[in-house]
Amino acid sequence: MTSLDEKFRKLATDNAPGQEVRQRDDDINSLMVGGTLPGAPIDFSHGDVDAFEPTPGAFDRFAQGVQIGGRRAYTEYRGDAAIRAQLAVKLAGFTGAPVAGSDDLIITPGSQGALFLALAATISAGDKVAIVQPDYFANRKLVQFFDGEMLPVRMDYLNAGEGAGLDLAGLEDAFIAGAKVLVFSNPNNPAGVVYSRSEITAISQLAGRYGVTVIVDQLYSRLLYKGQAYTHLRALDIDPHNIITIMGPSKTESLSGYRLGVAFGSPAIITRMEKLQAIASLRAAGYNQSVLQTWFAEPDGWMEERIRRHQAIRDELHATLIAVAGVTARLPQAGSYLFPTLPALTTAPGDFVRILRLQANVIVTPGTEFSPHAGRAVRLNFSQDHHAAMSAVERMIQLIGRYRA
Amino acid sequence: MTSLDEKFRKLATDNAPGQEVRQRDDDINSLMVGGTLPGAPIDFSHGDVDAFEPTPGAFDRFAQGVQIGGRRAYTEYRGDAAIRAQLAVKLAGFTGAPVAGSDDLIITPGSQGALFLALAATISAGDKVAIVQPDYFANRKLVQFFDGEMLPVRMDYLNAGEGAGLDLAGLEDAFIAGAKVLVFSNPNNPAGVVYSRSEITAISQLAGRYGVTVIVDQLYSRLLYKGQAYTHLRALDIDPHNIITIMGPSKTESLSGYRLGVAFGSPAIITRMEKLQAIASLRAAGYNQSVLQTWFAEPDGWMEERIRRHQAIRDELHATLIAVAGVTARLPQAGSYLFPTLPALTTAPGDFVRILRLQANVIVTPGTEFSPHAGRAVRLNFSQDHHAAMSAVERMIQLIGRYRA
Repeated sequence: MTSLDEKFRKLATDNAPGQEVRQRDDDINSLMVGGTLPGAPIDFSHGDVDAFEPTPGAFDRFAQGVQIGGRRAYTEYRGDAAIRAQLAVKLAGFTGAPVAGSDDLIITPGSQGALFLALAATISAGDKVAIVQPDYFANRKLVQFFDGEMLPVRMDYLNAGEGAGLDLAGLEDAFIAGAKVLVFSNPNNPAGVVYSRSEITAISQLAGRYGVTVIVDQLYSRLLYKGQAYTHLRALDIDPHNIITIMGPSKTESLSGYRLGVAFGSPAIITRMEKLQAIASLRAAGYNQSVLQTWFAEPDGWMEERIRRHQAIRDELHATLIAVAGVTARLPQAGSYLFPTLPALTTAPGDFVRILRLQANVIVTPGTEFSPHAGRAVRLNFSQDHHAAMSAVERMIQLIGRYRA
Repeated sequence: MTSLDEKFRKLATDNAPGQEVRQRDDDINSLMVGGTLPGAPIDFSHGDVDAFEPTPGAFDRFAQGVQIGGRRAYTEYRGDAAIRAQLAVKLAGFTGAPVAGSDDLIITPGSQGALFLALAATISAGDKVAIVQPDYFANRKLVQFFDGEMLPVRMDYLNAGEGAGLDLAGLEDAFIAGAKVLVFSNPNNPAGVVYSRSEITAISQLAGRYGVTVIVDQLYSRLLYKGQAYTHLRALDIDPHNIITIMGPSKTESLSGYRLGVAFGSPAIITRMEKLQAIASLRAAGYNQSVLQTWFAEPDGWMEERIRRHQAIRDELHATLIAVAGVTARLPQAGSYLFPTLPALTTAPGDFVRILRLQANVIVTPGTEFSPHAGRAVRLNFSQDHHAAMSAVERMIQLIGRYRA
C-alpha cells in the first residue's frame, strides 16, 4: 500500500496535455541554442476543435436538452434511459454484438470518466493488471492510483507488419503471473496502430483461458484510414461478463468540450461503475447527454470527409518527418496520433519538448508518458489545421537539426 | 482493507435520489393498505428546476463558450484560468478570506465532484475521518470507498436552539481518537440547520489544536432565510493549508444540469485534486465552465425573490407537517431541505418510502441515508412548485394516517 504522498507524487500531470501553462521554465534557458522560430503556435497535445469543428447539430441538441428541463437535468446516474436505449442500438450495430440500454451501458463524463470508473470497478489494492507499452498514459496512472501492480507487455509497433505488434507471449506470461485485468487502447494511443484480427482473437482466447477481465478503449475506432479493417473484441467468442468497451465522441467528432463518453458490456461491472459515478460526479452533465443523439447520426458523407482530411494531413506529415535523417515513424492506420522517434539529441528528451514549446511555439507530448522505453519518441495529435500543422513540423525539424547530437 | 465486492456492496444507490426507477417493487404489494391517491407526481429527492428555473443568462453563457471554441473546450484540468480568476474574487468576497485563482481553486463536475476529489486527496486506507450524523449520505460512502474509518459525531438538530446542535465534546473525542479529516455540510443536509458562530469557532479551534484537515460543504450557504446569520469557517483563525471549502450553483441557482462546482482553499490539496481530476474526468465540461460567469452575478433582486419564494413554501410545509400528531421537524434556517421525523408506523420506514411513491406518487429520501439514527425521518427537497408540493404533502399525511401504528 503506497502512502497518499507517494500516490499523488506518481500522479504527475506536469507533462500532461494542456498543463504546460503550469510548468516552471526557469532552468531551461541555459540549455537553449539560438533564437526563437516565428510561426503560429500549435498544440499537438490534443486536437484542434476550431480546425475540425464539432458534429453539426451538437449545439442544437444541447439547446433541446435545456428546453426539456428538469427531466434531462436529473437523469439516472448511468444516464438518460431514452438516450441509452438509442445509443445501445447504434453501438450494437457498430461493434457487432448486443448491447442492452437498460443494463449494459453507462454514460460518463468523457471516455476518461469511463476508464476511471471501469478500472475502479475491477482493481483492488495489490491486483495485477496487464498494460501495454506504449499505451495511453492514464492507464498506468489509474492502476497506480488504485494500488494495482502493473505487468507491462511490450508492443513492437515499428516492426509489426499489418498488426499492432503486441507481444502475445508476453501477454500470456502476464496472465500466467496472475493478471486479473487487461486494459488497452485499440486503435493504440499513441502509435495509431490497429490490432489485427489474429491479435484480437488471441487476446480473446487468452482472456478466456485465464479468466481475465478486459477493458478495451476504442475511442478512435471510427476514424479508420482507407482500406483499414477493424476487429471488435466484444464481437468475438469472449465471456460478455468479462469485457467492457469504452468509446466517446470527444476525438473524431470534436465534442470534447461537452465531456461525454460511454462504457458498455458486463452489466455487473456497469452497475459498479454507476455506484461509483453516484459519488464521483453524479452523472455526465444532464443537458450535455442530449448531444449524444448526434452520435452515429452524422450527416451523410460527413465522416468520410473528416477521414479524408485527416488522411491528407497524416500522409504529408508522415512523409515529411521520415525524410529527416534518424526519424522513424509508422504510418498511422487510424486516429490522429503520430508517434515519431527522434534521432539522438544533445538535450534530454524532456528538455527538447520544453525547448520546442519555448523556441518554436510547438507543443507535443513526451514519449515517456506512454512508455518508459519511448524516451526518444513524441506524440503529435495531427487533428489540426493542415497548413499550420505542416508549418509547425517544419519548425520542429529545424530544431531537431539544431540540437542533433 | 475491504474487498472490492464488499466495497461496492456498501456503495448502494438504491435509495439515492433519482434511482427509484431501478428498484424492484415485486415484494411491496402485500404490505399496501387501500388504493392509490390521485395527484401530480412529485419528486422531493431533488429540486425541480422547472419550478425554479436556472439563473437567467446561463444558457447564453454556455452558447458563448461554444463560440469561443477550442480554447474553452480544452482548459487546464483545474478549469479555465480567466474564469477561475473571476470566481476567486467573488468567492473571497462572499466568504471573507482570500482566494488566489491561480493556485487555490479548482472547478469540478458539480460539488459532488469536488467532494469526491477532496476526500480522495486527504484520506488513505485506514485513516480516521470524523463525520456528522445526520449529514449528506455521500460523505459516509466516500469515506468507505477510500477505506477510511468513520468516527461519527452526533448533531442534535431538533434541540439545538439557535445552532446546529453539534456534539462538540463528541467532536473532540473523535479528534483525540485520531481523526485526520473532518467533513461536514453547513447548512446541514438534510436538516437545513446552520452552525452558529460559536459552533464554527469551536470547530476551528479544535481543528487547529489537533491538526485536523476540514472539508466543509457550503453548497446551500447563499440561500439563508430572513435574519439568518452565517459564519464562514475559512474566515476564522484556521490554518489555510488545512481547509477546503466546497460550493456550487446546482441547488439555489438550479444549474445542476450543467454539472459545475468549485473547491477552494489549501493549494496543496487543490493540486492533488487536479491530479486526480486529470484521470477521473479530465475537467468540468469546458463549455459548461462558461456558465460560472453568471454565478454571484445574478440580476438585482433575483436571489432575494428566490429566497422569498422558498421561504413561503418552507413556512407552509413546515406548519402543515408539524400539525400532524407525532410529526416533529425543525424549521430550516437555510437551503431547501426539510427533515421531518414521522410517528411510529406499521411498516418499516424504508417500506413506507416505497409505498409513498407507489400509492401517492411522492418521492422522498429515507432518513437512514443520512444517519443510522434517523430511521423515522425522511428528507424533502421543497424547491418545488408551491402548490404541487403542498398537494403532495397532503397525500403524504393521508398515508401517515393510513399506516399509523
